[in-house]
Amino acid sequence: MDIATRVYNHKWKIDPIVRSLIDTDFYKLLMCQSVFRNKPDTQVTFSFINRSDKVPLARLIDEGELREQLDHIRSLSLSRGESTWLRGNTFYGKRQMFRPDFMEWFENLRLPPYHLERKGDQYELTFEGSWPEVMLWEIPALAVLMELRSRAVLNDMGRFELQVLYARAMTKVWEKIEQLRQIDGLGIADFGTRRRHSFLWQDWCVQAMMEGLGGSFTGTSNCLIAMRREVEAIGTNAHELPMVYSALAKDDKALAQAPYDVLSDWHEEHDGNLRIILPDTYGTEGFLQNAPDWLAGWTGIRIDSGDPATAAEIAIRWWQDRGEDPTEKRVIFSDGLDVNKIAELHKQFSGRVKASFGWGTLLTNDFRGLVPDDRLAPFSVVCKAVSANGRPTVKLSDNPEKAMGPKDEIARYKRVFGVGAQERIDVIV
Amino acid sequence: MDIATRVYNHKWKIDPIVRSLIDTDFYKLLMCQSVFRNKPDTQVTFSFINRSDKVPLARLIDEGELREQLDHIRSLSLSRGESTWLRGNTFYGKRQMFRPDFMEWFENLRLPPYHLERKGDQYELTFEGSWPEVMLWEIPALAVLMELRSRAVLNDMGRFELQVLYARAMTKVWEKIEQLRQIDGLGIADFGTRRRHSFLWQDWCVQAMMEGLGGSFTGTSNCLIAMRREVEAIGTNAHELPMVYSALAKDDKALAQAPYDVLSDWHEEHDGNLRIILPDTYGTEGFLQNAPDWLAGWTGIRIDSGDPATAAEIAIRWWQDRGEDPTEKRVIFSDGLDVNKIAELHKQFSGRVKASFGWGTLLTNDFRGLVPDDRLAPFSVVCKAVSANGRPTVKLSDNPEKAMGPKDEIARYKRVFGVGAQERIDVIV
Repeated sequence: MDIATRVYNHKWKIDPIVRSLIDTDFYKLLMCQSVFRNKPDTQVTFSFINRSDKVPLARLIDEGELREQLDHIRSLSLSRGESTWLRGNTFYGKRQMFRPDFMEWFENLRLPPYHLERKGDQYELTFEGSWPEVMLWEIPALAVLMELRSRAVLNDMGRFELQVLYARAMTKVWEKIEQLRQIDGLGIADFGTRRRHSFLWQDWCVQAMMEGLGGSFTGTSNCLIAMRREVEAIGTNAHELPMVYSALAKDDKALAQAPYDVLSDWHEEHDGNLRIILPDTYGTEGFLQNAPDWLAGWTGIRIDSGDPATAAEIAIRWWQDRGEDPTEKRVIFSDGLDVNKIAELHKQFSGRVKASFGWGTLLTNDFRGLVPDDRLAPFSVVCKAVSANGRPTVKLSDNPEKAMGPKDEIARYKRVFGVGAQERIDVIV
Repeated sequence: MDIATRVYNHKWKIDPIVRSLIDTDFYKLLMCQSVFRNKPDTQVTFSFINRSDKVPLARLIDEGELREQLDHIRSLSLSRGESTWLRGNTFYGKRQMFRPDFMEWFENLRLPPYHLERKGDQYELTFEGSWPEVMLWEIPALAVLMELRSRAVLNDMGRFELQVLYARAMTKVWEKIEQLRQIDGLGIADFGTRRRHSFLWQDWCVQAMMEGLGGSFTGTSNCLIAMRREVEAIGTNAHELPMVYSALAKDDKALAQAPYDVLSDWHEEHDGNLRIILPDTYGTEGFLQNAPDWLAGWTGIRIDSGDPATAAEIAIRWWQDRGEDPTEKRVIFSDGLDVNKIAELHKQFSGRVKASFGWGTLLTNDFRGLVPDDRLAPFSVVCKAVSANGRPTVKLSDNPEKAMGPKDEIARYKRVFGVGAQERIDVIV
């Protein structure tokens, strides 16, 4: 190692986990642009939630270190090269995906303050402010907490023990890739930024997918890695749009309409492969039943909760009912995937629809079984909008385990969206 | 990476496998000093022999590349730091193990010419000249052929495929170390230079043993690695001494005496833990029966062929017959070891003798099962003295599969040393 590099590295007070504002999911930037255009003044609160009580984050992670990492993120701004890439690159076959007014705003952005407090063995971490700013905290906040937890566990391991740990993890990923290679016509992307073991590990996984899967690897949701590794940046939209739009709805009628308003705004901005319906925020079945006809003309659907095969069958029937040809439609599976599930879904749906896969936590954080007491196993954390302009948000999804929001509001949403009994499915990651 | 390092690396025409004259086994240097003192003018021929016909070395390895590697070794001389280490270090608790006259000779040494010829799918590689010079070819010649074979197989693998290959190999070694860690009172050294997968790999294995086994890891036979990693250099003597002494014997009576002459010379030069009998060159049983009494006073025995438990039991009985206490004696197992064998021998002999282990090929080259067709599996090569002053050498050992020499000479040696029926044992490595 050269002396200059070493001295340079010594200058860091910390080893920063998130080193770039585009070390985030591509759909965050797409949604951010949409929010910047359509709802720039909405005031939101985002909150970090550890769904896994068994992982005592406040005992594992030093509060000072966590603050240093979060403060470091607040010091970041878009670099010239990153800005050039966002402005000049082709995303989903389209040039100038990000408009000049948005880019100018983004170039001047620093992330807003955070609020951190220890509550027992957990941290309460919240972000308040204007929606387009606060929303960009989600991914880096999750990545920091996940990686600090990894570091806490790795901290008391020897150098060769560490090397062997990573050797085992690499072997595990590679064996999965070798299995995936057997699947004809597979299309799969990395969706694992938010709950990754670490940045370097996600970067390794992406490169392994590139070499191991060739053309079957369609890209990564992580913008920084997409830029560096010269692969496609992948992603469309997420639950936060219907959640905030719905919270802002002034009455039940407006609430029932809100999720379609989201897609109506999206429809004006995007076409082609970016027109992907995320139908499960308040129950897939009702959402599709009540959807306007123009939505059936969209390119596809993303299935992110509940039993994926059931949801895909519902979508296929819905397209058929609306006179659409399902074989022309894209179905993106993105919830709790691992190799066997991917193989099974591909077998069931390839040919019937254009199936593809957004593989998340069990790609970038499958350290299960690699250390005693499974202290590196992934766990379920989220960072969600909990209120908008002072009104609470609600998420139901197709799995009651994933429901969020105040009880009375959940009841109201269930009534408005006509959600009946739902199957409970354990949330692993 | 800094530019200077990169430019410097580009200056190499080749990527040299052996980069130092002390990238060799410690016992080679001890024996070399003994030969330098006692038989400096003996003319010998050493010959490389691939016992594994199934590995077509001449088809795998380009002759030009092989010549470049061998030529590079001929360009090496002892560096100042290496010389300082040999002169100043403590070996087996002794300062100035290497005497000034030997060091002066060694500092001026370049290895003598080699003779290389392709014969079908194999290479004929021989070295002729004075014994102390030619003998130093053995280890680097083997290391070069082993590593060029590894490189030939690795050559058509992708970058991540390679990383995963090494990840798997590391995991394999580490799992062995974890098993060995369970054995109370274990003493084990690396003896894997000659048939290692590569230099870097051996260096990794040694470091993993250091971290994983702590004090149970007693050192490495490789001088360069011992110097760099600051561990003990381990080794005493090998078959080449009795083989050459025996070839030089003028009649059957002198022949029967030759193996004892070797140890008599050794007795004068070394004491303590360096007085280790290697009894199997012409059959362990006869060797011990006919041994002079002073040999029973030596510190221990090294078991390098045949069934190791049988040989150890023979040694124990021999010490008892000669009035020695076996619990005070060291028994070093060094033939074809892997973890299960080590555990089994340790269980059978710890407490009864001071058992220790010289772990070779299945430490530094266990790539079995890691690539298709097992093309990286270790294979059995040797580089041996085949003649001395124009007379053929013979080795019998305790396994007829390892016998070497002209048929009529083998018969003569069997008669002179009273070797009867022997159990045939497959030679894996």
